[in-house]
Amino acid sequence: MDTDGLRDQLLAIVGADHATFTPLHSPDDLRDESLHPAMTEPFAVVRPASTDEVRAICSLASRHGVALTPRGSGTGLSGAVTPVPGGIVVSFSRMNRLLRLDANDHMAVVQPGITLRELNEALVASGLRYPVYPGELSGSIGGNVNTNAGGMRAVRHGVTRHHVVGLELVLVDGTVLRTGGPVVKSSSGYDLTQLVIGSEGTLAMVTEVTLKLSPGLAHARTVLVPFASLEDATRVVPSIVASGLEPSIVEGVDVLTMAALTDAADFELGVDPQVAASTAAYLIVVLETRTDKQLEDDVGYLASLVEAQGALDVYVLASRSATRLIEARERLFWVTKASGAQDIMDIVVPRSRVADLLAEARRIAERHDSFIGGCGHVADGNVHLAVFQADDDVRKALMHELFAYGVSLGGQISGEHGIGRDKQGPFLDLSDPSLIELQRRIKAVFDPQGLLNPYRTLDARPLP
Amino acid sequence: MDTDGLRDQLLAIVGADHATFTPLHSPDDLRDESLHPAMTEPFAVVRPASTDEVRAICSLASRHGVALTPRGSGTGLSGAVTPVPGGIVVSFSRMNRLLRLDANDHMAVVQPGITLRELNEALVASGLRYPVYPGELSGSIGGNVNTNAGGMRAVRHGVTRHHVVGLELVLVDGTVLRTGGPVVKSSSGYDLTQLVIGSEGTLAMVTEVTLKLSPGLAHARTVLVPFASLEDATRVVPSIVASGLEPSIVEGVDVLTMAALTDAADFELGVDPQVAASTAAYLIVVLETRTDKQLEDDVGYLASLVEAQGALDVYVLASRSATRLIEARERLFWVTKASGAQDIMDIVVPRSRVADLLAEARRIAERHDSFIGGCGHVADGNVHLAVFQADDDVRKALMHELFAYGVSLGGQISGEHGIGRDKQGPFLDLSDPSLIELQRRIKAVFDPQGLLNPYRTLDARPLP
Repeated sequence: MDTDGLRDQLLAIVGADHATFTPLHSPDDLRDESLHPAMTEPFAVVRPASTDEVRAICSLASRHGVALTPRGSGTGLSGAVTPVPGGIVVSFSRMNRLLRLDANDHMAVVQPGITLRELNEALVASGLRYPVYPGELSGSIGGNVNTNAGGMRAVRHGVTRHHVVGLELVLVDGTVLRTGGPVVKSSSGYDLTQLVIGSEGTLAMVTEVTLKLSPGLAHARTVLVPFASLEDATRVVPSIVASGLEPSIVEGVDVLTMAALTDAADFELGVDPQVAASTAAYLIVVLETRTDKQLEDDVGYLASLVEAQGALDVYVLASRSATRLIEARERLFWVTKASGAQDIMDIVVPRSRVADLLAEARRIAERHDSFIGGCGHVADGNVHLAVFQADDDVRKALMHELFAYGVSLGGQISGEHGIGRDKQGPFLDLSDPSLIELQRRIKAVFDPQGLLNPYRTLDARPLP
Repeated sequence: MDTDGLRDQLLAIVGADHATFTPLHSPDDLRDESLHPAMTEPFAVVRPASTDEVRAICSLASRHGVALTPRGSGTGLSGAVTPVPGGIVVSFSRMNRLLRLDANDHMAVVQPGITLRELNEALVASGLRYPVYPGELSGSIGGNVNTNAGGMRAVRHGVTRHHVVGLELVLVDGTVLRTGGPVVKSSSGYDLTQLVIGSEGTLAMVTEVTLKLSPGLAHARTVLVPFASLEDATRVVPSIVASGLEPSIVEGVDVLTMAALTDAADFELGVDPQVAASTAAYLIVVLETRTDKQLEDDVGYLASLVEAQGALDVYVLASRSATRLIEARERLFWVTKASGAQDIMDIVVPRSRVADLLAEARRIAERHDSFIGGCGHVADGNVHLAVFQADDDVRKALMHELFAYGVSLGGQISGEHGIGRDKQGPFLDLSDPSLIELQRRIKAVFDPQGLLNPYRTLDARPLP
């Protein structure tokens, strides 16, 4: 089919207001928030309004062998939605509705384009919440599903995978399927819901998501704990997790990063200057309970726990400061980006090895005359490290060393951002080739022509 | 290869003490606890001691096209380990060790043959626990992984799927692979760990399992709540789940079932006779907290919650009675089996539809001159219904009606027992054929010759 024919057929499916064609695209449709944007243009960007339109787009692309790149809000960090020249970007921005809320079942059915902010707002009145908290509230649920997004609350509430119980999928040939459903357990065949979660748009188009919600807890307190070293801070973490306090957030932040984020947000932590002078790192711990009385008890217990293990002090933040601190932490990615970091790592290792990983990061950075700083979801062993080294080859080499070290500890390349385009090198280099081969064969079952989000994850060919 | 050759090679792999050959098998190696045992004999039963032996067995079977049936303790309820005539049963009974316990990371690495009882005992000193509680403590972790076992604590702690973070697998051609690892989050390629969980031995041999453990909570109380009808009891459940009390167990039991289980366990509930006279169903709720003070508060709040919604009374059980009641509930399957039930359903529906499902079960049973009774993990929408109807055709017809009704509510055929051999009819009849076809193609990626646990789940051919 010539491009005119393809254009006409796409217009017939989505309507003239909902498609753009090269070279008239909006730049916002062509990138995510990767630090290494590929400046590629697809043939078309289309915004379907329904599963049926997605079905028609997939059938058309399949018949003509055209690449399909699904995208949500474009808040991803790994280049997973970089367009393919000549291909079709399928934006889910118009499929953004809450379709059903079953308050008794704690279930919501949503379209993939709904953002976390929109979902949160729609849930307020129900007393329920979607507890996964990747920070960036403009991110879409479809994107969260495709990257298995995690975030700050994973230590208590788990990641996207633990809250998605069903999907509607459009396969590349246009077949529409439903996996799972509004039930919290199942042992009825292979769990294709779980297989598609984290597959970065390479297996199927997600057109509907059934989410398991949780009751909100009425009382919360944020506790800030300064330590003399990042090692001291991370060493306390296992005992906090083991305590039965069930913290919903446990973040570790070094002082430089903390200074950057409080500066950017223009607020003061209120830490005593003498304490601040000997502080090298902070833990931020959020506790949530059903009753205020229990919260008081729990905060007291947490304080005694960390004080017995080297905390320099314990600050229970006022509600407004707490909100600002967590919001500032959310925005750290932007601060880091603005500070000129050339890359951000999202490595995950066993919780007890975070201190080792950070020490090794320092050694590797020194060896390569570079700087690595950052913070982490320390209770999950998931650390985001900003890498400052302008030379591409040097930076890649030092990151490869650090990834290899993380993998040697039992870790993984990405905890929550995904592999996308940016992390394919270390992912493919450091994975067992048999495991990659098996995944490629599963990919071929879903997408024999290789049209769904090609050049991503398992497919490291250079972009055409 | 002739059978003598196969026998010699198997003996060379596992040793003479660890293999039996037809017709000299122990009957215990040939069945699970299905109510419909198939009396088939395999050629061999072998008990490998290591991944390397499993690898050698798989290679041998692959080269010669011999069926492989992996089995754990044989406590499954769906005929998933029925031997294949001429095939090899691979028993994991000797691969039953705790290989590693990382107390700081809350991770345990175990072999698949370890039973839940053995695992629990090995964890006692650590203060950690594997919180999934399928009841039958002689069940093996490998079996739990392959059925995605759930059980009584799923309402708070989730099912097997939520606690398995890594696997060692032997593929049918003898390739050894590791998926996942001792980390709580990952977004690094397709999650093959999750794909294999619940696959009933049809995709790969599981030879090692990495489990995420949880801190135990020091204080627990069991609360027994009588209601005038099962509908009353199930209607209260959503508000208990929404309360933020985070109950770890919420079971619904009708009076007949309760009588059967207390009789079998020879103990008294201690319910006031006048209350008992108007009781048609009970809820059993277990609350667990970090402090005794919080437990008292929570029990009080639970009592006020259920009293406002039709509870006839509230009994906070003494510790010994509580243990006996939960143990008796655990043993309900055996009581039901002994009572002559011809089948047990494990259907799962949205939590709010349990009352509808039970009402429909009563109507269907009446229409077919049959009896259906039982109890359920009501907060999960997962009910185990004992079906009393000796005529096979009538029983199949009525069960099919009830399964179809459950599926129409958004439910699934099996919540936690699996499809195995026994539930293939309704599973295949009531599933979207495209979904089954996709699963069969995934199966073919892992097992192109169809040797791994054939005649199960997706493969409904009659046994040879």
